[in-house]
Amino acid sequence: MALTLVQFDFPFAGPWGAGMTEALGGLAQDIAAEPGLVWKIWTENAADGRAGGIYVFDNPDAAAAYRDKHSARLASFGVTGIVAHSFDVNADLSAITRAPL
Amino acid sequence: MALTLVQFDFPFAGPWGAGMTEALGGLAQDIAAEPGLVWKIWTENAADGRAGGIYVFDNPDAAAAYRDKHSARLASFGVTGIVAHSFDVNADLSAITRAPL
Repeated sequence: MALTLVQFDFPFAGPWGAGMTEALGGLAQDIAAEPGLVWKIWTENAADGRAGGIYVFDNPDAAAAYRDKHSARLASFGVTGIVAHSFDVNADLSAITRAPL
Repeated sequence: MALTLVQFDFPFAGPWGAGMTEALGGLAQDIAAEPGLVWKIWTENAADGRAGGIYVFDNPDAAAAYRDKHSARLASFGVTGIVAHSFDVNADLSAITRAPL
C-alpha cells in the first residue's frame, strides 16, 4: 500500500479547542467517509492563528482528489493563504520512529 | 496528555526511497530516542524536491526543544528554506477521523 501524506495549514480565526470541535464535528464526520482516507489529525494553533490537518491516504490519486476538493471547500469558506503539500511516506524510516501506519 | 504536532519540510536533493532509508537509518535511530517523541512519519517528494517529517510529541516543551535542535541540525547539513510549524492536536475531532493518537 503506497501511502500518501497530505499536510494542510491556513490562517484561521477560531473557534479553538472544544469550540472548534463543536463547530466542525459535522465536517469531521463527512471527512471520515472520504474515499481512500486512512486517518486525519486535526491541528490548531491559536497563538499563530493557523489551523490545518495531517492526512494519510492509501493511494496517491485519492490524496490528489481530496487536496483539490478540500482546497475548494476552504476557499468557499473564505479561507485564503492555504498551504497544501503532498508527500510519499518512507515506510521503513517511519517504522524506526514508531509511526502508526 | 497534551499532544503537540510538528511539521517540518525543506528542499532536499535525495537520495529517495530505499536510498534515503539507507542514508538516514542511523539518524532515524537517534530521533527514535528523542525525549517526548511519540512518533515520526518520514515524508519525501522526489518530484518537488522536498522532504520532511510529521512528529507527535507528548508535551509542548519537548516539541519546541526538538524543533530548535532539528532546525540547527538541518542547517548544519547545509539545508536552507526550512519550514517548521507547531500545532496543538484537536483530539476529539481527530478521533472522529480515526487518528492513531
